[in-house]
Amino acid sequence: MKGGPVYLVGAGPGDPDYLTLKAVRLLGEADAVLYDRLVHPSVLNYARRARLVQSVGKGRNGQGYRQEAIHRLLVKLCQEGYGPIVRLKGGDPFLFGRGGEEALALEAAGIPWEVVPGVSAALAAPALGHIPVTFRGVSRGVVIVSGTQAGGAAPSLAEWAHSDYTLVILMGVEHLDQLVAQLLAAGRPAETPAAVVSGASWPGARSVRASLSELPEACRRVGIEAPATIVVGPVTQLLPAPEALSGLPALVDLLPPG
Amino acid sequence: MKGGPVYLVGAGPGDPDYLTLKAVRLLGEADAVLYDRLVHPSVLNYARRARLVQSVGKGRNGQGYRQEAIHRLLVKLCQEGYGPIVRLKGGDPFLFGRGGEEALALEAAGIPWEVVPGVSAALAAPALGHIPVTFRGVSRGVVIVSGTQAGGAAPSLAEWAHSDYTLVILMGVEHLDQLVAQLLAAGRPAETPAAVVSGASWPGARSVRASLSELPEACRRVGIEAPATIVVGPVTQLLPAPEALSGLPALVDLLPPG
Repeated sequence: MKGGPVYLVGAGPGDPDYLTLKAVRLLGEADAVLYDRLVHPSVLNYARRARLVQSVGKGRNGQGYRQEAIHRLLVKLCQEGYGPIVRLKGGDPFLFGRGGEEALALEAAGIPWEVVPGVSAALAAPALGHIPVTFRGVSRGVVIVSGTQAGGAAPSLAEWAHSDYTLVILMGVEHLDQLVAQLLAAGRPAETPAAVVSGASWPGARSVRASLSELPEACRRVGIEAPATIVVGPVTQLLPAPEALSGLPALVDLLPPG
Repeated sequence: MKGGPVYLVGAGPGDPDYLTLKAVRLLGEADAVLYDRLVHPSVLNYARRARLVQSVGKGRNGQGYRQEAIHRLLVKLCQEGYGPIVRLKGGDPFLFGRGGEEALALEAAGIPWEVVPGVSAALAAPALGHIPVTFRGVSRGVVIVSGTQAGGAAPSLAEWAHSDYTLVILMGVEHLDQLVAQLLAAGRPAETPAAVVSGASWPGARSVRASLSELPEACRRVGIEAPATIVVGPVTQLLPAPEALSGLPALVDLLPPG
C-alpha cells in the first residue's frame, strides 16, 4: 500500500462556515477528495492541492455509487498512491454517514484511517431553528433516529411515543405522514409541539412549527423539501422561531455572499 | 440597549482544531468573551480584540457562577455597551449546555442573539474512540442522556434498557456504578458491549471497552476521570480501539504541539 491515510471528515450541515479548522487543514493537504451530495460545493475550494476531487454521492435521480463501490474506490486510490485522501461526508461521519462501514472496509484492507467529527445536522438543524434539544425541566435527553430505513421504508417509531425525551428524526420528511401517524397511533398526544427545519444553514432554509397532528399539512402548505430534520417535543416551542419570511417562520440565509 | 448581539457559540469537544470557521471568526470580532470550564485555553487566543475575556464556569472545587448570574452578566455587559459578545460553551450550546436558558433570558431582555452549533462530545467522543453510534444492521439510532441530573443525582435509565439504539451518556462517569446497576436491573444483558471515552480530543484522552457489567471495574483499573462519555451497545466493538498506550486502549494525543 503506497497511499493513504484516509480521513473520514465531517463537513457539517452545509454552510462552509461550519467546517472545523481540522477539516479545512486536511482538505488543504489532500491529494484526493471524495465527497457526498450534501456537501456544499464551496467547501471543495479548500482542496487546493488535490489531483482528484470526485463526487460519490447519489444524484437527484437517486443514481450514484453503491456503498461497496465507494469502499473499492478508496482502496484503489490508496493502491494507486493517492494520499492523504479526504472522504468528506455531510454532517458527522459516524452518525448515519456510513462512515463506520467505510472505516471497517479500510481496516480490512490494512489502510490507516482517522475519523474527524463534524457538526451534525441532528443537533445543528434544531439549533438553527431555535430549538434547544435539551432544557432543564422540559427534556432530559434526545433520541436521534433516521426516518428512512435501508430499502427506503419508514422505521417503526412506536417505542418512542411515550418518552419525554426530544425526538429528532433525520431524513424523514418524505415519510412525514406515516411517521406522525405511527406516533399518534402509539399514543403520543395530537397536540404535542413539533417542528421541521429544512435546509438548515443552506440558502432558503425554513422552519415550520405546528402540533404533531398538524405538522404534515403545515409542511405541505409551505412546500418543505429534503433535507429536513423533524423535531418532536415541547422544546420546539420554548423560543421564538427564527425571523419570519413571507409570513412563515424561516431561517435567515446563513451562507456568506459569493 | 447599546451592546450585543450575543452569540451562543459551541467550542467543540476540546481540541481547538474542532472549532468551526464561524466560531473562530466570531471570536476574532468579539468585544467580550464569556467561557465555560471545558473550553480549551488555547481557544481564547482567537479573541484578539476582546476587552473582556472571562471564565464563568465552575472551578475544580465546584464553585462558580450560577446560571442566573450568567444571565445577569450577559445583560449587564450589553447594557455597558459590549458587543458583539461571544458566549463560548463546550461542545454544542443547545445540547446540555444550558444555551437554551441563556437564549430565553436574552429574549426576555430584548437582546438579539444567535446560536452557533458546535461539534458535540456526545458524537465526537464515541467517534474519536472509534465507535460509530449508528451502523446498518447494528444500531438504527442513538439516545443521548445526561448521567447527572440537576442536583447531582444519577437519572433513571430503566426505560432504555431494552432499546437496540446506542445509548450515549454524558457527564455520567461519576455515577457509573449506579447507572450500570440500573441498566442491568432493568434487564440489559451483563455481556452487552460498552465503552467509556474520557477526555476526547484532550491530551491524555483514553478509551476503555468492556462488557457492561465489567465496565465500572475496568474504568477503576485505568483510573478514568471526567469529562468522559459512556457508550452502551454493540457498536462499541465494531472497530478496533484507537492505538494502545501503556497496554491500555488509548486515544492518541490530538492536540497540536505548543
